[in-house]
Amino acid sequence: MTDTARPHLEIREVGLRDGLQLEDPVPLAAKLALLDAIAVTGVREIEATSFVSPTAVPAFADAEELAAHLHRWPDITFSALVASPNGARRAVTSNVVNLEYVVSATDAHSAANVRRTTEEALTAVSVIADLAHGAGGTAEVIIAVAWDCPFSGRVDADHTAEIARRAVEAGADRISFGDTIGTVVPGRMTQLLDVVGAVAPGVELGVHLHNTRGIGLASAWAAYQAGVTRFDASFGGLGGCPFAPGATGNIATEELAYMFDESGVDTGVGIDAVLDAVAVLRDVVGHDLSSNLFRAHVAGAERVAARGRAQR
Amino acid sequence: MTDTARPHLEIREVGLRDGLQLEDPVPLAAKLALLDAIAVTGVREIEATSFVSPTAVPAFADAEELAAHLHRWPDITFSALVASPNGARRAVTSNVVNLEYVVSATDAHSAANVRRTTEEALTAVSVIADLAHGAGGTAEVIIAVAWDCPFSGRVDADHTAEIARRAVEAGADRISFGDTIGTVVPGRMTQLLDVVGAVAPGVELGVHLHNTRGIGLASAWAAYQAGVTRFDASFGGLGGCPFAPGATGNIATEELAYMFDESGVDTGVGIDAVLDAVAVLRDVVGHDLSSNLFRAHVAGAERVAARGRAQR
Repeated sequence: MTDTARPHLEIREVGLRDGLQLEDPVPLAAKLALLDAIAVTGVREIEATSFVSPTAVPAFADAEELAAHLHRWPDITFSALVASPNGARRAVTSNVVNLEYVVSATDAHSAANVRRTTEEALTAVSVIADLAHGAGGTAEVIIAVAWDCPFSGRVDADHTAEIARRAVEAGADRISFGDTIGTVVPGRMTQLLDVVGAVAPGVELGVHLHNTRGIGLASAWAAYQAGVTRFDASFGGLGGCPFAPGATGNIATEELAYMFDESGVDTGVGIDAVLDAVAVLRDVVGHDLSSNLFRAHVAGAERVAARGRAQR
Repeated sequence: MTDTARPHLEIREVGLRDGLQLEDPVPLAAKLALLDAIAVTGVREIEATSFVSPTAVPAFADAEELAAHLHRWPDITFSALVASPNGARRAVTSNVVNLEYVVSATDAHSAANVRRTTEEALTAVSVIADLAHGAGGTAEVIIAVAWDCPFSGRVDADHTAEIARRAVEAGADRISFGDTIGTVVPGRMTQLLDVVGAVAPGVELGVHLHNTRGIGLASAWAAYQAGVTRFDASFGGLGGCPFAPGATGNIATEELAYMFDESGVDTGVGIDAVLDAVAVLRDVVGHDLSSNLFRAHVAGAERVAARGRAQR
């Protein structure tokens, strides 16, 4: 239940997309079990899959199959990531009408990711927005490498803000800023959002953060202080990079919900239910997760169990 | 080098105290090797040890021995934690004249920690401050369980602020707030600091945070925004609780320095040097550390090494 007197924000659960993207492909039945576990956490938005080439990303070869099951959770707003107008057509045909479309802020990352320049990627925004709107949905542009690019280094805030402005002009309903390699810090978050506020005022803004260097939650807090109301997160902090075994993935849903709820900002998300979902997730992926809150929870449970054994 | 035009703050390295407290006792030679590694990071303050009962905390049985070596690093301000006037006397006799003294905000935690009530613990502040000042040093009071107590639950901000006011009245040069069980979040950080600012204006303030639930860096950022200029941190995020194997320790020095330096706030601490020190630490303690930044650093190094092997 949302208490309308309290400030509030939206957490979008992206574990099934950004989290599973780099895992060995998970069977459809396991994805549905994860959705069952997430659906009861109180989260209102889930990025369920990605309509991209199954050759490029085998984890999402079942996108259409998964989409056919999403009607099971009528209270949840589902969305999908797309990389092209073709992907957008596949999504809306599958009744997934809320679309996220990535535009990289640098040509180098754009070329590596989708073999297009930033300019070429921007030209598709209006087509994708029309497809989403025509189906009764929304189109969000996620600006990847919004702060730093693994190939080109620092990205100028003016440049990222200008991409945001142009994406909105082309029909995007809102903009998210992706900290793709997990380098952003609160000061740079605030700096970019200040510039965006001047260049593209009044736009609904989100952030998509990774916790690679442990600063993701701090940057999320700074984003909230600067007016951002939409946050991507992944339960358990699932994700990472196959070439960086120790690196963590997205900021963890349970840590984000804990931080905001305890700070008096309503997320609608119940921490205990997310921790239960993370336990399911851990069994599905078969490895530990990077969430500190989940680890503390498990350690606490083990402590209680140890006390129980000691009393016997 | 501190650029005086930039805002700046102090990071106090507490890994040798709070971090090692719960490890198997580390030989003196290893502690000195760790100090060698930390001393070149640019950090200006180190809490080196604790003058407490060696029976209670075997890790610090060598406090006097260690203190005899600290003159080796003349540019560093060393301090020690004490739990009583007797510990303070041991410290100043060993030429460690900057003292941290803990007062728990709740009687239950105070009793568990030092078998005294909060009121009894407060009465020792003036004695300890006199000992420190008489030796030319400083006395800081760290208020433990400043937000939440594992025994008594929530602690009222007015109560914690009043302890701060009384500690200053009794002679403390500054106050730190300890998030002993790692539960604080930015909203509650701001709330307490607002109350403290009203009750005890103009006092130099620090925070001592644990990253148990992944929110430590975010709370540190909120503290900085509210005027706090002193931060305890532990290289590698060393620390934790022997009864909570998965729980993490203090916020990691390298993550804190990264967050602030990249945000334009000078800490004087070089990230690469801290990462080198963490590598030494990992060999000393013989286990992985919870710092995300260190893990990302190791993963990156492994990636470079793998590329080197592939090229052969």
